[in-house]
Amino acid sequence: MPMITVGIGGATGYGGVELVRLLSRHPQVRLGFLSSESYAGQRLGDVYPHLGDVDLVLEPLAAEPIIDSCQFALLALPAGKSLEITPALLKAGVRVIDVGPDYRLRDPAVYARWYKLSHTSPDLLAEAVYGIPELYPEPLRDARLVAAPGCYPTSALLAVVPLLRAGLIQADDLVVDSKSGVSGAGRSSLALPYHFPEADEDVAAYAVGGHRHVAEIEQEVAAVAGREVAVTFTPHLVPMSRGILSTIYAKPARSATAAELTACLREFYADRPFVRVLEEPLPHTKWTAGSNYAYIAARLDEHSGRVILISALDNLGKGMSGQMVQCLNLMCGWEETLGLDAPGLYP
Amino acid sequence: MPMITVGIGGATGYGGVELVRLLSRHPQVRLGFLSSESYAGQRLGDVYPHLGDVDLVLEPLAAEPIIDSCQFALLALPAGKSLEITPALLKAGVRVIDVGPDYRLRDPAVYARWYKLSHTSPDLLAEAVYGIPELYPEPLRDARLVAAPGCYPTSALLAVVPLLRAGLIQADDLVVDSKSGVSGAGRSSLALPYHFPEADEDVAAYAVGGHRHVAEIEQEVAAVAGREVAVTFTPHLVPMSRGILSTIYAKPARSATAAELTACLREFYADRPFVRVLEEPLPHTKWTAGSNYAYIAARLDEHSGRVILISALDNLGKGMSGQMVQCLNLMCGWEETLGLDAPGLYP
Amino acid sequence: MPMITVGIGGATGYGGVELVRLLSRHPQVRLGFLSSESYAGQRLGDVYPHLGDVDLVLEPLAAEPIIDSCQFALLALPAGKSLEITPALLKAGVRVIDVGPDYRLRDPAVYARWYKLSHTSPDLLAEAVYGIPELYPEPLRDARLVAAPGCYPTSALLAVVPLLRAGLIQADDLVVDSKSGVSGAGRSSLALPYHFPEADEDVAAYAVGGHRHVAEIEQEVAAVAGREVAVTFTPHLVPMSRGILSTIYAKPARSATAAELTACLREFYADRPFVRVLEEPLPHTKWTAGSNYAYIAARLDEHSGRVILISALDNLGKGMSGQMVQCLNLMCGWEETLGLDAPGLYP
Amino acid sequence: MPMITVGIGGATGYGGVELVRLLSRHPQVRLGFLSSESYAGQRLGDVYPHLGDVDLVLEPLAAEPIIDSCQFALLALPAGKSLEITPALLKAGVRVIDVGPDYRLRDPAVYARWYKLSHTSPDLLAEAVYGIPELYPEPLRDARLVAAPGCYPTSALLAVVPLLRAGLIQADDLVVDSKSGVSGAGRSSLALPYHFPEADEDVAAYAVGGHRHVAEIEQEVAAVAGREVAVTFTPHLVPMSRGILSTIYAKPARSATAAELTACLREFYADRPFVRVLEEPLPHTKWTAGSNYAYIAARLDEHSGRVILISALDNLGKGMSGQMVQCLNLMCGWEETLGLDAPGLYP
Repeated sequence: MPMITVGIGGATGYGGVELVRLLSRHPQVRLGFLSSESYAGQRLGDVYPHLGDVDLVLEPLAAEPIIDSCQFALLALPAGKSLEITPALLKAGVRVIDVGPDYRLRDPAVYARWYKLSHTSPDLLAEAVYGIPELYPEPLRDARLVAAPGCYPTSALLAVVPLLRAGLIQADDLVVDSKSGVSGAGRSSLALPYHFPEADEDVAAYAVGGHRHVAEIEQEVAAVAGREVAVTFTPHLVPMSRGILSTIYAKPARSATAAELTACLREFYADRPFVRVLEEPLPHTKWTAGSNYAYIAARLDEHSGRVILISALDNLGKGMSGQMVQCLNLMCGWEETLGLDAPGLYP
Repeated sequence: MPMITVGIGGATGYGGVELVRLLSRHPQVRLGFLSSESYAGQRLGDVYPHLGDVDLVLEPLAAEPIIDSCQFALLALPAGKSLEITPALLKAGVRVIDVGPDYRLRDPAVYARWYKLSHTSPDLLAEAVYGIPELYPEPLRDARLVAAPGCYPTSALLAVVPLLRAGLIQADDLVVDSKSGVSGAGRSSLALPYHFPEADEDVAAYAVGGHRHVAEIEQEVAAVAGREVAVTFTPHLVPMSRGILSTIYAKPARSATAAELTACLREFYADRPFVRVLEEPLPHTKWTAGSNYAYIAARLDEHSGRVILISALDNLGKGMSGQMVQCLNLMCGWEETLGLDAPGLYP
Repeated sequence: MPMITVGIGGATGYGGVELVRLLSRHPQVRLGFLSSESYAGQRLGDVYPHLGDVDLVLEPLAAEPIIDSCQFALLALPAGKSLEITPALLKAGVRVIDVGPDYRLRDPAVYARWYKLSHTSPDLLAEAVYGIPELYPEPLRDARLVAAPGCYPTSALLAVVPLLRAGLIQADDLVVDSKSGVSGAGRSSLALPYHFPEADEDVAAYAVGGHRHVAEIEQEVAAVAGREVAVTFTPHLVPMSRGILSTIYAKPARSATAAELTACLREFYADRPFVRVLEEPLPHTKWTAGSNYAYIAARLDEHSGRVILISALDNLGKGMSGQMVQCLNLMCGWEETLGLDAPGLYP
Repeated sequence: MPMITVGIGGATGYGGVELVRLLSRHPQVRLGFLSSESYAGQRLGDVYPHLGDVDLVLEPLAAEPIIDSCQFALLALPAGKSLEITPALLKAGVRVIDVGPDYRLRDPAVYARWYKLSHTSPDLLAEAVYGIPELYPEPLRDARLVAAPGCYPTSALLAVVPLLRAGLIQADDLVVDSKSGVSGAGRSSLALPYHFPEADEDVAAYAVGGHRHVAEIEQEVAAVAGREVAVTFTPHLVPMSRGILSTIYAKPARSATAAELTACLREFYADRPFVRVLEEPLPHTKWTAGSNYAYIAARLDEHSGRVILISALDNLGKGMSGQMVQCLNLMCGWEETLGLDAPGLYP
């Protein structure tokens, strides 16, 4: 297998540095370009001592140096930034995996409403593949442009989509209650809610009824339902660095036991190495730290007749950078787990 | 005002030691008896250096020494233990505030189902007052027996009951998603899930569809609805010591704006010092640490048409020991806030 | 006893808001003025929901409004800011308790060296009382100006000074290794090291060989020794909000047992309510959260012949705002513990 | 290169499960035997969902099954347990890497004093190699028996030994102040100090003047000094799961600048991939999580004339299981970093 060279846009944010961590040990990947505005000119290994042996010097973001040296660009940039370079990258033959929101929403009007930005390359939206390999395996292999989903949508959709497709739960009336570690807020955003003495020993909801990720969740649920749906989504911040646990409340579409729900999920993920369906014990985010594994369990609350789904993953792993590498592996025709099978760090 | 003497059953668990902390500084209370099985014979101030000046010696639990010296017994005991002494205490004229489950559920069959114990004094259930002073203020004053509610039910009911009574939300289809600090698991239960390296940097659900507290929540919701209801309740453990945040999803009973929901809650709690209704910011558990204050906010998710309620309190404060002292104050005809108005410890 | 009115300079930093928390419940104190640059014009209870019932509106710092309404000014300001108003306050008869560094160092040249500021009222340094009531009780009562010490120096000096004065340890060769919670870094300093995902699950030393607090420690040790001394002081950040633990390594001045060391400390603090000397167990910072209590233990490492002292306090309590209230009580001739005897919040 | 088969004694403690995590992904290792008393009969992947794909069934500890299937035994057992099987393993030609204390102390009387156990195979002590590859590289390659050091000694010795050997610091008067995450206490020890609400938001010293690891530190310092030495060692528990930071205070042996100290360390570790010597920033334990890397910095406190060394590592990585795999690699003649070069998990 020939090596490929990868450029990373936004290499010093938490998602970017996790990409460097994973790719610096990937057996088929050479890092060719790392962008950073804040640390441009510095060696990455000096900025991040845990990656002390990574010698690349950080450069400001631009399409040219990526085109010159890389076959793939992995972008972890703020909203709107990918729009500035992705068309040029694609045109030059560089394949793009973008974990920002710019190519996730198929409808540019929905993008404009949630991100207050007008889309400058709507023609590319039709070919962008929403990058959850377990749910949309086919088109990934030959994709030029992958829009890797947000951490919350990955967490919710991995649990919801198989049961929706199997007709076991209703598309309406979904409630997604998510609990996230603080790294989800990013590294450059030194706002008061993420100041240690504020976030420590605290739990709170935020953006109730108005978090941007609900648009993605609804888009993918609607795609199964074949009509528009409204999902209730409430994110919370909990005092830990990594991890998302989503507790999802659904109405059954037809009578089914907990064992049938579990069996449906198990069958769906039978050949997929990164999603583990459990009966007991219930998923813990701790199992996923630093890994690309997700854990799902389905329960039937016989008392109230509700289906309760629990989904755990690492927001920077399967929820972001790990999933990007998984997409990369598949786009290159490699084993899905190549360089990506490290178990979670426990305890 | 004359001083009263109080005995505490279970003084060395987390709830009991919090009672000692509060009552050792209460201007009208003298501590007369402290029970502990594990530390019997030791001075409480030696067992708990943060209460170094509390000189009482711990004794095994028994009715007699309480009857001999106390007008009130505050009990924080495992299920079934209160049954063993409460009838004798009441008979001898000692008033009882019991934060265990023994007198909370009006139907002894429901108690038997959830706690696997047969009730030995069902005749007392009719007079037991469910001890949330804001919701049931009248009968408290003259009560002989108060059944102080669990931490989760207090958290949920403070938000739900006023809106239910006002006919603004439906009694059916309630989902209560609660996030609790680890002290809720108690101190003597040294089980693996509460071992620091296991609970740290982790979030997980537990007892999905089967937590005992759902019985209390349903009992009180049913009392407003006038019929049986089923509530979906999912508790979670988050890596902090104190605090519960409940996120509650309800269907509106009639069209109402978020402002109307907030106004309804504000009016309900207008004269109650310990419940604060906020529009912005959303409640944080951190504000409540060590205090008897609870914070509530109501939001309308216009997108999905759902009412979302957020409720924050300290599981050992308003969720347990603080609320017991609040009941005591009212039973004695004192200011509700006497010895209890310390703000939360922030940060 | 007549009420007094107190103004707080810097009321929205962590030290200031802790002063408000303590004084808002103090039986003899009325809050007359609260300064804040960032939140000027807002009601303090709105900025800090845990103090929801505090109605004062925040104002920019100035001497006049304090002079107009207050007998005491408690200042928790950045270095140099107290210099701007303290002379005017004193001249107008307002007594000042300043927890900033401006009046702590008797030698203005030492102040200039460490704080890069030139002292503008060096004439006041002679009368400033270093505000650790247990160590310097006499001059406090009539002081016009109290320079409350830093959190680290309080932690170290409470353990060291009694043994030094008793001739049990040497003034030379002292090593102070301190571990602090993150609130010590303040609230407005949103720097990367205090961002939750950075500080969480981490411990590191900082300012090795160059922390400003070493100047205070040396000044007070030198005052006992009667000559200049050099102290080695290393602060560390640990992932918790509150608390300082100092581990102090000293050479014995003469042969003494651990029991003699403990007895010396016990005798020294026999009549002081806020310092507790323990043999077993060793001090934990957890016992001190939100309180004005400090815990000290002395051990003799018979193997190496070294005296090891352990000192625990709350950096915002006895290490800062609690100690300021303790000074206020003594300056007013009140009980030292008035409004200040709340035990630590455990767990 | 041929694969080797490895047996793990004590596979379900924190150290053992970390060995499984590392070796399950090691390119040259096959796991042949995993022991556990508590989980015997269960599949490891069921007990530890983060290692869900590890299929081996746990068995009680015994020499025979290891001898039957393995070339190497890696033992992470309580004191005294290795004594029971190591002689048989060696006799049968199985090479042993033991991270317990049984073969670390060359003098069986010292072992007996600290561990209250009488040594039953003292004849093996002479050939046991103390397993810090950077400090004792030569004898490892052909060793039959490696006694891997404790986490605290590794942390201290990596910083101290090179400077001692170079004559830059004195062997006397060493103070080692260490701060450890709670996983160091193990998983089966569900004692109160490690209960989440007790350890959270707390820092405390323990075993002052009496921790067993001081014997190892002194043994290795004495080996350089050529005479007995006494070291002062104080361990502390800090509220995090993984990591040890040691702050070491030493007296210079001759005049040297900080740059010379750093240069000495850099030269010593020039060809060693796992020890990184930094000038700036100071080491953080966070960089090391889940990795085999250690970070060291040397400072000269010009004020007090003391050398201050800071050393950070993961107590379960370079402090335990990582180092055992590093020893294994060297004993097999492989690259030191084989299967072991994963960077620390940040953030």
